[in-house]
Order: sequence, then C-alpha cells, then structure tokens
Amino acid sequence: MEIIKTISEMHSWAAGHRKNGRRIAFVPTMGALHEGHLSLSREARLRANRLVLSIYVNPTQFGPKEDLTRYPRDTENDLKKAKEMKTDAVFLPNDEQMYPKGYQTYVSVEELTKYLCGPARPGHFRGVATVVLKLFNIVMPHVAIFGEKDYQQLAVIRRMVHDLNLPIEIVGMPIIRESDGLAMSSRNRYLSSEERKAALSISRALTRAEMLLRGKKCDIKSILSAVHETIYAAKMVHIDYVKLCDPLTLEDLTTLRLPALLAIAAFVGPTRLIDNIILK
Amino acid sequence: MEIIKTISEMHSWAAGHRKNGRRIAFVPTMGALHEGHLSLSREARLRANRLVLSIYVNPTQFGPKEDLTRYPRDTENDLKKAKEMKTDAVFLPNDEQMYPKGYQTYVSVEELTKYLCGPARPGHFRGVATVVLKLFNIVMPHVAIFGEKDYQQLAVIRRMVHDLNLPIEIVGMPIIRESDGLAMSSRNRYLSSEERKAALSISRALTRAEMLLRGKKCDIKSILSAVHETIYAAKMVHIDYVKLCDPLTLEDLTTLRLPALLAIAAFVGPTRLIDNIILK
Repeated sequence: MEIIKTISEMHSWAAGHRKNGRRIAFVPTMGALHEGHLSLSREARLRANRLVLSIYVNPTQFGPKEDLTRYPRDTENDLKKAKEMKTDAVFLPNDEQMYPKGYQTYVSVEELTKYLCGPARPGHFRGVATVVLKLFNIVMPHVAIFGEKDYQQLAVIRRMVHDLNLPIEIVGMPIIRESDGLAMSSRNRYLSSEERKAALSISRALTRAEMLLRGKKCDIKSILSAVHETIYAAKMVHIDYVKLCDPLTLEDLTTLRLPALLAIAAFVGPTRLIDNIILK
Repeated sequence: MEIIKTISEMHSWAAGHRKNGRRIAFVPTMGALHEGHLSLSREARLRANRLVLSIYVNPTQFGPKEDLTRYPRDTENDLKKAKEMKTDAVFLPNDEQMYPKGYQTYVSVEELTKYLCGPARPGHFRGVATVVLKLFNIVMPHVAIFGEKDYQQLAVIRRMVHDLNLPIEIVGMPIIRESDGLAMSSRNRYLSSEERKAALSISRALTRAEMLLRGKKCDIKSILSAVHETIYAAKMVHIDYVKLCDPLTLEDLTTLRLPALLAIAAFVGPTRLIDNIILK
C-alpha cells in the first residue's frame, strides 16, 4: 500500500494506472474509519482493480462553531484498516497542499443545499462539493463510492458530477448500523455511554415510521409526530429537523408520496447526528 | 473537420484521441470568430496534434440587461473559418445540452472577481468559470488557449485551474489589434462607423500611458488622468473604469510598481468594450 502525501505524486500515480488501462475506484473519507467505510471499500474493490482511499479532514466544510478541531483523528489506526482492506494507495494531504495561500475557488450546488442540513450548516455543502471536486481531479477515479447515511451529501455530489459533466460513476451504499440500530458515524466516538443509549431513539424513530407505514393508512402528520414522540422519549436528544421529503429534489412533501426520504438531524448532548430511511 | 453537437459524442471523441496518445488543444469561443481567435488556434496547433474549437454563446455569463440576445451569431461563417484553421473538431452544443432542466451547479473564484469588470457585471465570472470548467470536462484538453484582451477572464481561469487541480495547461496570447489599434472583439460589429472612430481613443489612451511611462518620472495620478483625458477627447465614449492594478491579484495599485496592468472598460454608445496593457 502506497501512502501519498502530495497532489503531484497522487496525480502521477493515477495517470500511470490509467495509462495502463487500470480502473480506479475512490473512497474519500475524513478518517476515523469504521465499518461503514469498510463497506464502501469492499464495494470499490468489486468495481475496479485499483482502490484509492483518501483521509483528509476538510476544514472548508466545517462552520466556525463546529467540531473541526476536535474531529477524531487516528491516522495510524486508519492506515492499518486501509491496509487490511487491500487499499492500493492512501491519499493523505495536508491543508497546505489542498488550500495553499491565495486559494479562492468554490463550487456550489444551489437548490439541493437549501433543504435539510443546508440551512443549519451554511457553507457546509459548498465545502464538501469543493473538496470532492478537487479530490476527483487529483485522484482521477472511474468510480467513487459514498455512504447513504450522508444522504444529502450524496445527492449534492451526484448533482455536481452530472452538472459539471465529470466522467465519474457515483455509487451510493446503504447505511451500516451497529447491532442495536445506531447508524455508524465517526462522530459516535463523542458519545458518553448515556448519550449512546439516548441516540438509539433516532434509528428507533425511523423504524417506527416504517412500521406505521406498513401497518395502516397514514399521513405525513402521523409519521412526523410518531418520530418526534419516539425521539423526545429519550431525554438527552434535541431534534434539529425531522423531514419527509422528495428523495430527488429534497423538497418537503406536502402529501405522502412514495418513495419518500425520512431524514433526521438531532443533537445528542453536544453531538449532532444524522440518520435517514427511504420509505417505500 | 467534425462537427459535434452532443456532450456524449464530444466526450467519446476526446477519450478516443487521448487513448491513442494524442495531445488535445482547446480554444473555447462564443463564435463571431475574428483574427484574435485565429491567433489562438495557430498557437494551439503548435502545442498539440488535435485542435478542438467550441462555439457556444454561454447564457450564464450575461447579466439580465446585457447583450445575450443580440450577441453576434454567424455559425456558417465560423465553421468556414474553423475549417481553414485546420480544426479537427468543432463542439457546437445548445443550451439544452449545457444547462438541462434542474441545472444548479456553479463555480466561483472569489477574490479576483471583486475587481475590474466584477462589480459592473455581477455573476459574469461565475458564468465564465462554470462554462469553462464544464467545457474542460467535456473536451478533456491537455492545453487550452485564451486571449489576453479578456485579461481578468484569463486570470480567473488560471486561478480556477490551479485551485481545482485540473491537469490542464493554460496559455494566454497577446491582444490582436486592427491596423489602427482597436483591439479585436466580436462586439466591434456593434459599432457604427462614427462609434468605431471614437472607440480608437481607448487603445490610444493605453499607448499614451506607455509613452508617459517611458518619457519621464510619472505616478499613478498622471497616468490615470492622461488616460481619462485621451478617452474623453472622443465625445461618444463613457468610461466604466480605468484601473492600474497588480497583474496577479488585480488589486488597485496605491503606488506605481511595475509590471502593472492598465485596464479600461468603456461604453462606446451602447457597446461596452475592454482593453488593457501591461506596463513594464
């Protein structure tokens, strides 16, 4: 496994493999790798014969009051896991490489980012789209794999790739959950054991909504109030949003129409978690 | 010469030539080709073995009160000239190809666009950066050639390419002038013969500034007032801006420091023209 720290080296590596007819799959991450990332890498291996994983905590996607400085960093462990996944190259740039002095170019996806996490995290998706576009240009993958836990992020990236005519296939992979239902996230490391227990109310709320839908005729209002009720049964959880929306445009549904995206963002103590389900 | 109208065909064409080891040069234009464009194409031919020219009047770089609808379109003549230049492929997309329903992704270069034409043309450079990035992703050139008449545009594109890590060489070519000094521009077609004469005051002002600089010790104030004086000697010309600025950052100079960019935008009747010179 090669560990590549500069853009020019990563570029040569990718250009060399492309020239030799290799197909490159790419899994961009912010490190603190967990089973969710591993599932992306496994899929990547099936779709290409070279796997590049990037580990970079991208500062431009964090707001001034967000958790950039305390975001979990565990490079040594991450590299061990990357090796176990038979990663061919890990791209591990620093801020100076990615955003040198004078940096000033940003990509915005304007409609999809008006909904869900957009209003609560101004600039977040601009930072995500920008860094992903840069990484795509550096790694030059044929296919890139993202998790569906960050549903809106995946939608934004698909839209950007389509709008900017990038010749890259984007693949979304299902949410990986702990055995008790909690969606895997690097931010779960922040949770105390008490918070960890309370956080379960989020996935429980999604499951309850799905059951409601299966059980009998129901409407948006009954689904949303069941979700609120389930989450507020856990005392430490504060809802940021619960939305039933169109899975393509992310606009709020006014009448129930399937498939629908049920998306939740909630603070468990100081930690903001997101989760979602497609109701079919 | 191939005439290619769809993104997928253009893409296949470029991918095929790349696979066969060809080097692709690209000259993006809005048509109404003149000697300036021809000079770009000649340079392109020297730097690659395949030449792609695009002709597309990009709506996203025009403001609501600007000349999008009356911008000169003369495809038949343009194709004749493209053929004479030994162009290999002309990319000729329509708006539906470039901005299909739901389009919503834009690229902004934030600092360089605060100066010169930026304030007068809000959204213009966002439109330019976006369409050029799209065209780069579609045509996949190794090298792209731009004219220095649109100095700020060239600076914005260089910055975007650098910031987004695009593996494309950007080449700027000197302004091509009519024998009497008027910088070639597709918009010169708008000028009446009287306006055409008045417009000469713009290039005359640049030359006068250069002479002033050679002749004796001078400062920013004396250069700018000579420029204003020369232009206002022509009655039909209204100055939008005259700026002496840093050629890299485009910030106004407060003390004269060479090389310096002297840039002018002026309305000749209803037609907005730009011109510039690097003072050395």
